[in-house]
Amino acid sequence: MASTAEEKFELITRRLDEVLGGDLIKAILAEGKTPKCYWGSAPTGRPHIGYFVPLTKIADFLRADVDVTILLADVHAFLDNLKAPLELVAYRTQYYKKLLLAVFTSLGIPTSKLRFVEGSSYQLSREYNLDNYKLCTIVTEHDAKKAGAEVVKQVESPLLSGLIYPGMQALDEQYLDCDFQFGGVDQRKIFTFAELYLPRLGYRKRAHLMNPMVPGLAGGKMSSSDPNSKIDFLDPPEVVRRKIKSAFCEEGNTTQNGVLAFVKAVLIPISELRIERLQGKTGADAEEGAGAVGEQTPFVLEGAPKGTVFSIFRKEEHGGSLHYSNFDALEADFAAKKVHPKDLKTAVADAIVRLLDPIRQMFEADEEWQKVEKLAYPDPNAKAEKKKKVKVYHPPPPGKGKNTQPAETTAASEDGAHFAAEAAKQEGSS
Amino acid sequence: MASTAEEKFELITRRLDEVLGGDLIKAILAEGKTPKCYWGSAPTGRPHIGYFVPLTKIADFLRADVDVTILLADVHAFLDNLKAPLELVAYRTQYYKKLLLAVFTSLGIPTSKLRFVEGSSYQLSREYNLDNYKLCTIVTEHDAKKAGAEVVKQVESPLLSGLIYPGMQALDEQYLDCDFQFGGVDQRKIFTFAELYLPRLGYRKRAHLMNPMVPGLAGGKMSSSDPNSKIDFLDPPEVVRRKIKSAFCEEGNTTQNGVLAFVKAVLIPISELRIERLQGKTGADAEEGAGAVGEQTPFVLEGAPKGTVFSIFRKEEHGGSLHYSNFDALEADFAAKKVHPKDLKTAVADAIVRLLDPIRQMFEADEEWQKVEKLAYPDPNAKAEKKKKVKVYHPPPPGKGKNTQPAETTAASEDGAHFAAEAAKQEGSS
Repeated sequence: MASTAEEKFELITRRLDEVLGGDLIKAILAEGKTPKCYWGSAPTGRPHIGYFVPLTKIADFLRADVDVTILLADVHAFLDNLKAPLELVAYRTQYYKKLLLAVFTSLGIPTSKLRFVEGSSYQLSREYNLDNYKLCTIVTEHDAKKAGAEVVKQVESPLLSGLIYPGMQALDEQYLDCDFQFGGVDQRKIFTFAELYLPRLGYRKRAHLMNPMVPGLAGGKMSSSDPNSKIDFLDPPEVVRRKIKSAFCEEGNTTQNGVLAFVKAVLIPISELRIERLQGKTGADAEEGAGAVGEQTPFVLEGAPKGTVFSIFRKEEHGGSLHYSNFDALEADFAAKKVHPKDLKTAVADAIVRLLDPIRQMFEADEEWQKVEKLAYPDPNAKAEKKKKVKVYHPPPPGKGKNTQPAETTAASEDGAHFAAEAAKQEGSS
Repeated sequence: MASTAEEKFELITRRLDEVLGGDLIKAILAEGKTPKCYWGSAPTGRPHIGYFVPLTKIADFLRADVDVTILLADVHAFLDNLKAPLELVAYRTQYYKKLLLAVFTSLGIPTSKLRFVEGSSYQLSREYNLDNYKLCTIVTEHDAKKAGAEVVKQVESPLLSGLIYPGMQALDEQYLDCDFQFGGVDQRKIFTFAELYLPRLGYRKRAHLMNPMVPGLAGGKMSSSDPNSKIDFLDPPEVVRRKIKSAFCEEGNTTQNGVLAFVKAVLIPISELRIERLQGKTGADAEEGAGAVGEQTPFVLEGAPKGTVFSIFRKEEHGGSLHYSNFDALEADFAAKKVHPKDLKTAVADAIVRLLDPIRQMFEADEEWQKVEKLAYPDPNAKAEKKKKVKVYHPPPPGKGKNTQPAETTAASEDGAHFAAEAAKQEGSS
């Protein structure tokens, strides 16, 4: 139960990589007020299961009674790929909203408390654009470039869009009326840019909360164009198992291990959320779990000792199942080769299949969503082929970009934890 | 009388430095249609008499039955100087409109045929901004920088506004629905940028007509901060005479001579317009001269031979008055030291005083204008002091910029022929 201001702050900021301006949030909580948060996602390609990372964190915000706004950044999506006409972006926006709602429902997070806002509802307005122009008169090329360095691919002849994105993302904080913006730690420079420039427009500085990055399933193999490195929310169980099976997960290697990292970033947090919920620790979000679709048990095997947050099934003849009360213990065992990659993979695949089952069910029961899906992503394979031929580089919108560093430091983003290998593939690198 | 398509094209393009896409205009004229033109000016500082250059040329357009739109680029003005709040820009926009109308009237150019449009009436709209964002996704930093190289001051840490200006000026052509844009030859790179990028947005390429540049009264003395180098439209006769008297005008020197250049760019063209009007050669603009305020005689002394377009009074004992039928003859005489600077200055000062007299009369008869003037430019001297202290550089809007080359090649612009020394002063260089 997070009832005091201190407890709420702890809940809001737990598991994060970094918090900038925490005092702003503390002050709001100390006054007994409700902090307001915004998290943005540009509806471009099909979202993959890396989105579990920020969406799980949003459960914490709701438990701490935070007002959560989800920006469906359709204008950014449009800008990201001019070859996607506005109608297509509109379908993708619908698809994203359907999917995000389904994921929240599958996690037992009440969607009635979430506010969804489409970027086009205000980013094309007179006031917003006047502010955007104002920003352009005070932001130097140098600062804009620095702000986008981690999320905008650094190419020889960058486009203007890459320079105006940081400013637009800063303005979003004002126009969505948030107290803090939430995103991946790769957004850090865009966040500090916003902290610097919003006050120069006469607007208040916001706090920034950053979740850690999640590596790709393919680990450090950035040159891989392996389609198995990405798991779609709607992938059926056999596809999930096949992809996990082929994921890079070397025995004893914990640094370039996307499977292990997924346990840390997604599975254990969800497991813990569920355990806490069973214990009645849902704080201000009393409705949490009430409308949940799908089973909501933690990723813990029956008979596991108290305090276990993740179990790995293993036959008795191989030493019996393994139970971990925290990630570090699992990581240590993996490093010591006490956990075989095959067993870890099976446990992770089982967990993902369980996570995706209710989402797929909701999709199959929703004719409108199925229709929207076909319209939003008419022929993904043909599209992937085309992408590689494109010569003009379109910089990504905030939260959609990836830099050129190794996979393990770059994949996740404010729009969900993309798998880096997938990112590399999408950007056409090989 | 310009009645044939060929005659109209000749009239539209005469005295220009360069014409790009003339065939587009020829094709429209050949179909018997009316070409549409746009000329823009950002209402920032007080306009000076360099504006006579483009405004005189607009008389040619009207004679050739061209639809002329005048853009009062208030958004650009606002962007140009964030320290000028929107209300101030609104007053300056009113001031500019009042002044431009008065100058047209003083030149006998019917204002009923002109369409005035404020930039804010469409530049903050949903459609315009979506197009602006689209442009940002296809325009490279390199191209934007190249386009602005002549009009955006090149500083070490340029601002984003300098990069988005060329695109906005291109979009204006589409949104003002023109067939050609008219401006100073310093706009050439912005014009070719528009020719390249508008078709990439699916809009048609426009033609571009460029008038020559006019140097500052101070000639090449770029380091001068002499306030006498600028003549305001409302300067009283004694101030005009004093400023011309102190202008740089070295005997025999025709290359760095702002006074001589003013004769070429302004006085002779106006003289010729008036002579043609007396001869009934007003083409499609049959109303030309009808509502003129102030005397409309050419700058030719009584008793001058037929064909004279400019006379210089000289006492009989000094050889008597000089009469020229074209600028080249005057220039040759000046180079040969057959015209003394003092005599030239007196003739030019007389002509300017005659040009400004009706404008000043209109101002003094218009209480609303007087009120607007006080609100638009509350304390020009204090402002000039302040300007020098500003450290942050705000790039100029299209047509307001000056580059760093010597005065004689840079002063005039699409918003009127600014005097370069004044420009240098305004930008805080010394």
